[in-house]
Amino acid sequence: MEQVQLRSPHLLGLEELTREEIQLILDTADSFKEVIERPIRKVPALRGKSVVNLFFEPSTRTRISFEIAEKQLSADVINFSASTSSVAKGETLRDTVRNIEAMKVDVVVIRHAAAGAPQFLTRCLTHSVVINAGDGAHEHPTQGLLDLLTIRDRFGRVDGLRVVIVGDIAHSRVARSNIWGLRTMGASVAVCGPPTLIPPGIETMGVEVFYRVEDALREADVINVLRIQLERQHGGLFPTLREYARTFGITPERLIHTKPHAIIMHPGPINRGVELSTDVADSERSVILDQVTNGIAIRMAVLYLLNRGGDDDVE
Amino acid sequence: MEQVQLRSPHLLGLEELTREEIQLILDTADSFKEVIERPIRKVPALRGKSVVNLFFEPSTRTRISFEIAEKQLSADVINFSASTSSVAKGETLRDTVRNIEAMKVDVVVIRHAAAGAPQFLTRCLTHSVVINAGDGAHEHPTQGLLDLLTIRDRFGRVDGLRVVIVGDIAHSRVARSNIWGLRTMGASVAVCGPPTLIPPGIETMGVEVFYRVEDALREADVINVLRIQLERQHGGLFPTLREYARTFGITPERLIHTKPHAIIMHPGPINRGVELSTDVADSERSVILDQVTNGIAIRMAVLYLLNRGGDDDVE
Amino acid sequence: MEQVQLRSPHLLGLEELTREEIQLILDTADSFKEVIERPIRKVPALRGKSVVNLFFEPSTRTRISFEIAEKQLSADVINFSASTSSVAKGETLRDTVRNIEAMKVDVVVIRHAAAGAPQFLTRCLTHSVVINAGDGAHEHPTQGLLDLLTIRDRFGRVDGLRVVIVGDIAHSRVARSNIWGLRTMGASVAVCGPPTLIPPGIETMGVEVFYRVEDALREADVINVLRIQLERQHGGLFPTLREYARTFGITPERLIHTKPHAIIMHPGPINRGVELSTDVADSERSVILDQVTNGIAIRMAVLYLLNRGGDDDVE
Repeated sequence: MEQVQLRSPHLLGLEELTREEIQLILDTADSFKEVIERPIRKVPALRGKSVVNLFFEPSTRTRISFEIAEKQLSADVINFSASTSSVAKGETLRDTVRNIEAMKVDVVVIRHAAAGAPQFLTRCLTHSVVINAGDGAHEHPTQGLLDLLTIRDRFGRVDGLRVVIVGDIAHSRVARSNIWGLRTMGASVAVCGPPTLIPPGIETMGVEVFYRVEDALREADVINVLRIQLERQHGGLFPTLREYARTFGITPERLIHTKPHAIIMHPGPINRGVELSTDVADSERSVILDQVTNGIAIRMAVLYLLNRGGDDDVE
Repeated sequence: MEQVQLRSPHLLGLEELTREEIQLILDTADSFKEVIERPIRKVPALRGKSVVNLFFEPSTRTRISFEIAEKQLSADVINFSASTSSVAKGETLRDTVRNIEAMKVDVVVIRHAAAGAPQFLTRCLTHSVVINAGDGAHEHPTQGLLDLLTIRDRFGRVDGLRVVIVGDIAHSRVARSNIWGLRTMGASVAVCGPPTLIPPGIETMGVEVFYRVEDALREADVINVLRIQLERQHGGLFPTLREYARTFGITPERLIHTKPHAIIMHPGPINRGVELSTDVADSERSVILDQVTNGIAIRMAVLYLLNRGGDDDVE
Repeated sequence: MEQVQLRSPHLLGLEELTREEIQLILDTADSFKEVIERPIRKVPALRGKSVVNLFFEPSTRTRISFEIAEKQLSADVINFSASTSSVAKGETLRDTVRNIEAMKVDVVVIRHAAAGAPQFLTRCLTHSVVINAGDGAHEHPTQGLLDLLTIRDRFGRVDGLRVVIVGDIAHSRVARSNIWGLRTMGASVAVCGPPTLIPPGIETMGVEVFYRVEDALREADVINVLRIQLERQHGGLFPTLREYARTFGITPERLIHTKPHAIIMHPGPINRGVELSTDVADSERSVILDQVTNGIAIRMAVLYLLNRGGDDDVE
């Protein structure tokens, strides 16, 4: 095991991580990918540790992915969703979480509609590890990491690649985590979407902006298509789904003028026929299901790295 | 361990199973019944395997029965119910399930309101095992199997017995799985209910039809009373619950002219005073709680048989 | 291990327990507190046993506390909440529970809005252990026990202390369990609240009644502040929350004339600024988070004691 360690006891976002830290997580995830391929996918790394999945926003796939990762590491897993919680009784987030910590919970995986909620938790807690599973439009770091791992799997590197992110950039924590991670790892990043869905000043994150998808795709090695969050759209930021599909939807026709090796990514769930055509989603270029598999490996890696003792070498 | 194996990697229905396959499942369940009686009910057969219980219809007892069976086999268990799922976000069933498979889930136990949903899944999946926990009015194979086991427990055989199924035959997956399984195992089967609740042409499944419950019960060794699915009835298929109870309810009076050894079964939950009187449900003749216990053994057997490797002999 | 045993196979309330039994539970909980402090919090005491958490009322913290305790004892845990249950299909509580028992479940932890529901269960069941996790306004015995443990931790004893319970005594199962337990252990108990929230005849439980909080607090060693159950209040039993806070809220000012060593307890979740000010809740006097930690230890102790065989000495 290498001497690199994560500096923070928590995983809040990719903005805070160095290249070496991201490398460590990706390399650790690679080892866990071997575990995942075994007939018996169980390692004792988190045996006797308890993990609470604290989901204040509904999410099936992220919750299940974390839950599988936690159970494969032999943790005791507790699910907690906002609808059935004391939060309904008016308790503050701080009280909820300090109570969970008082139960000697080792890890809190939190998804919350408010950007900064995981960061806030770290200030309430003295010994539990916090993992951000998506906070508002801020970050979704394990998604960013699994995207990096999927890219590295395909190209053997991230450095020097051109990644285009297409969709609702303004409301996307996936976009933000991708941008931070990709930039740190040396990729060049472009974003593309309707002007109303591109946040002003995004260039300061080191990305190029395109409003015509054809221009954006031309040099791309990786095309990361965001989900149009139907449930998040208010106030007519774009005319209709049909209009969006016509102007920004990734279709076989739009891929004709791209590099032949360019891959298609999507964080799921896909709105088929809106941001991504079914033909493309199920094509050879699509690595969407690899992303899902890598999600397990990344989450196992993060849980493992944040839970190993400072000096003892857990194998 | 015998050389018989299940031919299909999935369990979709009893229609597809041979007599030898059903026998194998019942015999395996018998071994698991011994496990269930132990003070420590835990065997390592599915250690390191993950099972997702994918319930698109609410069901307490079937879900809990599967969950207990899975945990007693040491599987990692993930519960997923439609209300909290991506399905609410408009994802297709195929995408949901392919994502679950990409997480390297070994077994998907599915309950769905649409007949054929489990069959559809098997066409989306390449390595996960699918177990049907009830699909529309089509089949509920583990219920059929636990009913067979309960009958065999009592009579030492199924062959040659007379089984009468009373109730809403038209909407009942329990009836269909029972009919397929009982016929394959050599029982003679009759169904009985109001004409509106007997599907036309049911005789082609090899069953006799009765519209007067007194006639149906006379020769029965086994009386399997179906639940009146209050939530499924639309359009006045029968006048009132009171009327149904008066005409088809199984009461002590109706049992006077039956064989003294005839047993009473019910898949639960019971509408006491409607299809079954409390006196009968709690009588010596009732094997309803044996069915529940056998449900655990059958589900352990099915999970075990569908997960053992082709050549290795898991003890 | 001492020779004392719990006389009942169930835990229904503190009213039924002797001083020796309570002592045994507290002492056992003390041993489990050591387990809780270990890096690997897992003991095999309930390995191969199954526990169903049967919650007919929403409760996050109690359910999670039980679930953590159960998993740390290596039990197989099944969660069951009323909203997704057969109860919605009209099944009786008795049928639900007899079915759960037929699945060979070892322990049923039940929370129910009806006082006496756990007691009722014990009459339906022949071998499962029942643990009351709160029944109506009757008892919440594990809360009472964790409160006793927290007091004993602080003072080294319960005997001879003066405990004041402030709030809605009439609707509080926490108050009732505390009163029974504290009286049995030799504490002197007073209750305090608006006259509409003090049940007539409460003095027969051996407690003193105060209607002015200043009078009640003066001699207290322990101040146990109850949650104002906003969701339970009907029919104007007190004017407004603001009025309640002004008259009965525990604030730094109200603590000036109390014993300097007096501690503050609260079963949670706290309505900050209503029954308890934030300053007090987070002060040095507050042992509220200790209560939460002790909740795990008490639940482990109760589960352990009710599941160990009559003669074998499980270590």
